[in-house]
Amino acid sequence: MTLRPYNFSAGPATLPESVLHTAAADMLDWHGCGMGVMEMSHRGKEFIAIYEQAEATVRELLAVPAHFRILFMQGGGLGENAIVPMNLSRGGLVDVVVTGSWSQKSLKEAQRYADAACAASNEASGHTTLPAVASWQLRRDAAYVHICSNETIHGVEFQTLPDLKALGCEAPLVVDASSHILSRSIDWDRVGLVFAGAQKNIGPAGVTLVFVRDDLIGHALPICPSAFDYKNVAVNGSMYNTPPTYGIYIAGLVFEWIREQGGVAEMERRAIEKSTLLYRYLDDNGGFYVNRIASDARSRMNVPFFLADESLNEAFLAGAKAQGLLQLKGHKSVGGMRASIYNAMPLAGVQALVNYMQDFAHRHG
Amino acid sequence: MTLRPYNFSAGPATLPESVLHTAAADMLDWHGCGMGVMEMSHRGKEFIAIYEQAEATVRELLAVPAHFRILFMQGGGLGENAIVPMNLSRGGLVDVVVTGSWSQKSLKEAQRYADAACAASNEASGHTTLPAVASWQLRRDAAYVHICSNETIHGVEFQTLPDLKALGCEAPLVVDASSHILSRSIDWDRVGLVFAGAQKNIGPAGVTLVFVRDDLIGHALPICPSAFDYKNVAVNGSMYNTPPTYGIYIAGLVFEWIREQGGVAEMERRAIEKSTLLYRYLDDNGGFYVNRIASDARSRMNVPFFLADESLNEAFLAGAKAQGLLQLKGHKSVGGMRASIYNAMPLAGVQALVNYMQDFAHRHG
Repeated sequence: MTLRPYNFSAGPATLPESVLHTAAADMLDWHGCGMGVMEMSHRGKEFIAIYEQAEATVRELLAVPAHFRILFMQGGGLGENAIVPMNLSRGGLVDVVVTGSWSQKSLKEAQRYADAACAASNEASGHTTLPAVASWQLRRDAAYVHICSNETIHGVEFQTLPDLKALGCEAPLVVDASSHILSRSIDWDRVGLVFAGAQKNIGPAGVTLVFVRDDLIGHALPICPSAFDYKNVAVNGSMYNTPPTYGIYIAGLVFEWIREQGGVAEMERRAIEKSTLLYRYLDDNGGFYVNRIASDARSRMNVPFFLADESLNEAFLAGAKAQGLLQLKGHKSVGGMRASIYNAMPLAGVQALVNYMQDFAHRHG
Repeated sequence: MTLRPYNFSAGPATLPESVLHTAAADMLDWHGCGMGVMEMSHRGKEFIAIYEQAEATVRELLAVPAHFRILFMQGGGLGENAIVPMNLSRGGLVDVVVTGSWSQKSLKEAQRYADAACAASNEASGHTTLPAVASWQLRRDAAYVHICSNETIHGVEFQTLPDLKALGCEAPLVVDASSHILSRSIDWDRVGLVFAGAQKNIGPAGVTLVFVRDDLIGHALPICPSAFDYKNVAVNGSMYNTPPTYGIYIAGLVFEWIREQGGVAEMERRAIEKSTLLYRYLDDNGGFYVNRIASDARSRMNVPFFLADESLNEAFLAGAKAQGLLQLKGHKSVGGMRASIYNAMPLAGVQALVNYMQDFAHRHG
């Protein structure tokens, strides 16, 4: 087996090789049943077993309490930006903390369904900081408060979830955790709902995980499509409509892989190790490269950086590709470079990136 | 390679073996790029090539005119039941022809967004007939008329699409073709929008194809989620949000397979051959098995049937499974048996089913 390149895509993103090998081996015949996973009825005992195993494993990995339901849905993060207010807002007030592109989109979409307002924003800093929790303008009767706990594009991550109760706010916290879920534990006492598009740390695009507290289910607006009403999805075990079966199967394999590696605690240890290696180099390279995010807001998953001389960008990317370091171009709205170093990215990949960056700086510095 | 069982699941359903072999071979490295398809950025040149090839192939296979856009969406048929009225109804009148479970669901969901009414129904016949087009009660100002051209559960199929203009109706026809798309040609002059969940004749669950006439795009209700607004999807080439990339890749492989086999005309020839074989036996077996659908309404894709002595149902299913004939149990709302014989089901599979049915009848008759 030849070594695969290191793929730093922000999502869809690299997957554990062992997961891909299993998927390939199962393709025509899952566990001797004579069907591939894609070909199974979602109501047959084979797929039900796959589904239940995936749900149980992610519940165990994240220590999800019994009063939270786990839903496997479709529509991704952008879909959920509408689905959450359709289910939770009751047409009332929604407070959104803006820390980058994703929470900005969530705010705009929520305004279709509710009186949604910006409770705090880091826009003045160019989305490079986290607004202090004590400064958030939360409204007394808000139906919920929304944050994006890791901004994939801007590379800003909450290091802890805010304790709204300590602020005197009784509203449930809604967390878009798409791009760092399963890389750290979740304090369930502080949240009402967590959602995550799968295509970063979970598996293929087209699956959205929603963890929702029981009491928040059953309040959808009349205009909520029945397929996206949490109550229908919960009551029917994510089978109100045909779920994205193959994506759920891959997610289940990724969950198993995380468990085998040592669970979320081990993923967090590795994320700290990998991101520390990269940020340390970005801070100590003499100014050839720079990361502009405040040190207490830096994402362990998505690391945007810039070459001081941006005329070298194309040469940097071409050289990286030649070294087997793929998809390092930054998001068009930010520019520069971005290394996404999700759970499936090994330390060796980050080390290879730093080595290349050192070499490139040496040659062009 | 051992022979695989024949899988008669109504969906997700059997796929061509060659497609599964290709998918397995590509799993870790698509065309030498060093990434599996699931791991690719949807905005990278590799996935864009996959997407464009899939779109071009299905456009060619179904001879889709240039003034129709092809969208790859999420949410399945049930999702589309809401997405269509949110995009097309303008809050006005919607006429739905009820021919079984699926169109019944479409009617109910459209009533959330519009004044949706039943224009005709086959309920009195137990959903075994097609209501004569001349009897449809169409309203002059309807925003659209909805039909399900193949009812997966009840096994009722339109043999031709209705010519609404000939009835003096100017409203666009919306067709849910989920369970027979690509098994026959589509008369585009007669339709405004066709949608199809992928998990029968196209590929894995989690992809929905929407073919929509240009002039019907851009009229979404304000409460339509932006991710499901046809305009956003069309303008962004199905990349407004991250599309279900792996499902689109598999769909593209299935489209290629259909082309290699001889295209939609050949799929139709085979569908006629396979369904004729099965219906002929159901009509000429001396009453041990019966299909209750009117002969002009019989689906070529989904063939529900009953054993005259239903106490033999479990023995029938167990014996079938032992012969490698899987997933023949009927939908719970209808009972009995159902053989779904989509494009990927070979004639040999239908012949094996008939052989087994003959043998079972001989032993228990």
